Amino acid sequence: APAKAPLCAACHGANGMATIPGYPHLAGQNEQYLVSSLKAYRDKQRNGGQAAVMQGQAAGLSDAEIAELAAYFAKM
Amino acid sequence: APAKAPLCAACHGANGMATIPGYPHLAGQNEQYLVSSLKAYRDKQRNGGQAAVMQGQAAGLSDAEIAELAAYFAKM
Repeated sequence: APAKAPLCAACHGANGMATIPGYPHLAGQNEQYLVSSLKAYRDKQRNGGQAAVMQGQAAGLSDAEIAELAAYFAKM
Repeated sequence: APAKAPLCAACHGANGMATIPGYPHLAGQNEQYLVSSLKAYRDKQRNGGQAAVMQGQAAGLSDAEIAELAAYFAKM
């Protein structure tokens, strides 16, 4: 698993199924969508709802880490 | 199915599984997350990626329609 996967799993579930109702399941999601979403949070283009939380999580991610995490959850 | 479900299905799939790689699967997603996402698109708080497309789709939705559509896809 990618080094930072546990950070995601904390809210999105180790199996990619979020137990917190307002957070999305990631398991089996479209990989490209996960990449564009993470970049939109990182670049603060996504606001509203819990976006502020995700902006903080995505802030430090490199493109390579985003690609790795998206592939990891998309394949779940 | 909610009256506007076919509009969603056009891109997200009649079974809520998007065949277009950059678009998210909706089937079985957390209902509250679907509601907050639709509202963020409607209120133009979500940008980046394909957000502009979704802003157009969500622009005319009422809170009631959003609730109905979120419940519909969450239960798939």
